[in-house]
Amino acid sequence: MDKFKVDRSGTIRIQEMALRKTVVRIFGKMGLTDSDSKVAADVLVTSDLRGVDTHGVSDMVRFYVGEYRNGQTNPRPKWHIVRETPSTANIDSDAGLGIIIAPKAMAIAIEKAKNVGVGVVTISNGRHLGMASYHAMLALKYDMIGVCMTSSPPVVVPTFGAEPRLGTNPIAIAVPAKSEPPFVLDIAMSAIAGNKITLASRKGLNIPAGSIAAEDGTPIMKESPAPNFCGNTPPLLPLLPLGSTRELGSHKGFGLAAMVDIMAGILTGGGYGADPGPPNYGHYVAAYNIEAFMNTNQFKQTMDEWLHMLKSTTPAAGHDRVVYSGLLESETHADRITNGIPLHPDVIDWFKDTCSELSIPWVLTK
Amino acid sequence: MDKFKVDRSGTIRIQEMALRKTVVRIFGKMGLTDSDSKVAADVLVTSDLRGVDTHGVSDMVRFYVGEYRNGQTNPRPKWHIVRETPSTANIDSDAGLGIIIAPKAMAIAIEKAKNVGVGVVTISNGRHLGMASYHAMLALKYDMIGVCMTSSPPVVVPTFGAEPRLGTNPIAIAVPAKSEPPFVLDIAMSAIAGNKITLASRKGLNIPAGSIAAEDGTPIMKESPAPNFCGNTPPLLPLLPLGSTRELGSHKGFGLAAMVDIMAGILTGGGYGADPGPPNYGHYVAAYNIEAFMNTNQFKQTMDEWLHMLKSTTPAAGHDRVVYSGLLESETHADRITNGIPLHPDVIDWFKDTCSELSIPWVLTK
Repeated sequence: MDKFKVDRSGTIRIQEMALRKTVVRIFGKMGLTDSDSKVAADVLVTSDLRGVDTHGVSDMVRFYVGEYRNGQTNPRPKWHIVRETPSTANIDSDAGLGIIIAPKAMAIAIEKAKNVGVGVVTISNGRHLGMASYHAMLALKYDMIGVCMTSSPPVVVPTFGAEPRLGTNPIAIAVPAKSEPPFVLDIAMSAIAGNKITLASRKGLNIPAGSIAAEDGTPIMKESPAPNFCGNTPPLLPLLPLGSTRELGSHKGFGLAAMVDIMAGILTGGGYGADPGPPNYGHYVAAYNIEAFMNTNQFKQTMDEWLHMLKSTTPAAGHDRVVYSGLLESETHADRITNGIPLHPDVIDWFKDTCSELSIPWVLTK
Repeated sequence: MDKFKVDRSGTIRIQEMALRKTVVRIFGKMGLTDSDSKVAADVLVTSDLRGVDTHGVSDMVRFYVGEYRNGQTNPRPKWHIVRETPSTANIDSDAGLGIIIAPKAMAIAIEKAKNVGVGVVTISNGRHLGMASYHAMLALKYDMIGVCMTSSPPVVVPTFGAEPRLGTNPIAIAVPAKSEPPFVLDIAMSAIAGNKITLASRKGLNIPAGSIAAEDGTPIMKESPAPNFCGNTPPLLPLLPLGSTRELGSHKGFGLAAMVDIMAGILTGGGYGADPGPPNYGHYVAAYNIEAFMNTNQFKQTMDEWLHMLKSTTPAAGHDRVVYSGLLESETHADRITNGIPLHPDVIDWFKDTCSELSIPWVLTK
């Protein structure tokens, strides 16, 4: 396709390679090495290609540029291994952006998994991770299972609690199959994504049932008008954990968010979500060498059968099909590679202005 | 205390040591070694002491005795390591009971974690695991983090699906602290425990909102009469995943249950929850040596601070306090060590009859 096109609905779709080049140039202007800029662009554009727009170029480039400019994120981090064993490492990322440091940590985990079966790396003093599954998916081409988690600043209230204590703390895992698209799970431990709430708050829309707690901590289980959460940066959201109420299992979402705060926070040696708090994040990546456990080909064959079983589940009334984690993302990827990545007019404007300001070419500017 | 006492409410409470001796003798009559019988008794009585009655002596001894008698479980399994690397092992448990084999696997994982930082062991051809957190907690005294998961026969419907495809697939993690009771998470990936549904079904009670799907797969989001699920063994429950509906995040519970089916099922080489199905279970245990990542004392000190933060969260309206995973269980443990383990009269009768049949003494029989 051309560098961009306008589809039937009037949406502008940018070819992924063209978008990638722009993002590399923007990061270059922030003082990053060319190699790091390319990693960052790959994480962001891959998120868009997979339809994970919340973690793609639209919101994230602007956020990261802001963080480089205000000095919260270090464009030339002297990240280093603090402690190491044959199967583990602990990295101080020196305030480097997570989307750039996590792939380096994953490369270390993969090397360790090659050598001794499993590799686990924790990362302290980190910044935003981007789409967690990107890092987990790096293990796929080595016929390994990849895991990634991140401990983020508190926006989730504990079960029976009235104050946010834990982050959304996503868990991602990527597992290779033989012919089927890989199983790729990437989920926050809040019932609903925080950005859906801030968007509703900004636009004065309703908030879905089960997503937040009232000021006194009571779960709001009916659709209701969005309170104004936009006074603070980041907004102090009282998100409910996955499960929403104790009766529906919110202690499970709370417990899993806590698990992530330990593994990707406390175990990094750099604190946890609430302490030191923003702009700090802690990360965890792991690689499992399948061949260390069993014949890799047999594993992938079984994955195909198992994924097929899930897809062939009789659908519930009113639904066409059952999808497993990563299937829709794989379909979106195929579409967007061919037809480009749709961008909102506001995002187009931001890119145009920013590129102009930084004196770099923008796809849509002649 | 005496071997038993009757508390104010008329409930019979058995002293844990007395109960332990009885259970060891019952397992001995099933043909197990004395050493294996003691492990089994410890898993079961520890579950009761922690208040996890669903996995204690009341239901489980009877179930396991039945499985030994019908030949589904092997009392003298020749379990062995099928494949091994410095940080991993894969075990064929030869139809041994999970409550006995998992501790052996955990010992291997701990040894590997001592040597190379992390140890991960998968177990094929397994039988019932018992309380998953028991196995995870074995890591605590070595200043390690323990993890345990099990892939069980299907009773959970996928999001948008009308047939059970995955097990309740619990995840357990145990993390040591310095002075506070350890963080011990142990949760099924269904919204609500299956035994609550079978109990309601048997007694003709209502089922809570958000726990099961209707026959056409639609999540039942109101309290409603229990359908009759007791025709089959095990009953083919259509449990909803944690999150209950897509809007509340059931794709997350579905995805996590799937993750467990991979790590504790497919990665064992012995299939997964639905295939080969009952009586098969697959297990996964892991140990993380904290010292491999950071100073252990600093870790435990931070855990104390973090657990204190969670406990000191302002409670929601109508609630006294916020509890973290494992805190209530620790309090119940302290109470039951002192005051004994309460048993239902039906359970007392079963023990009396079974002990009489097997010619072994029963605590309450003179």
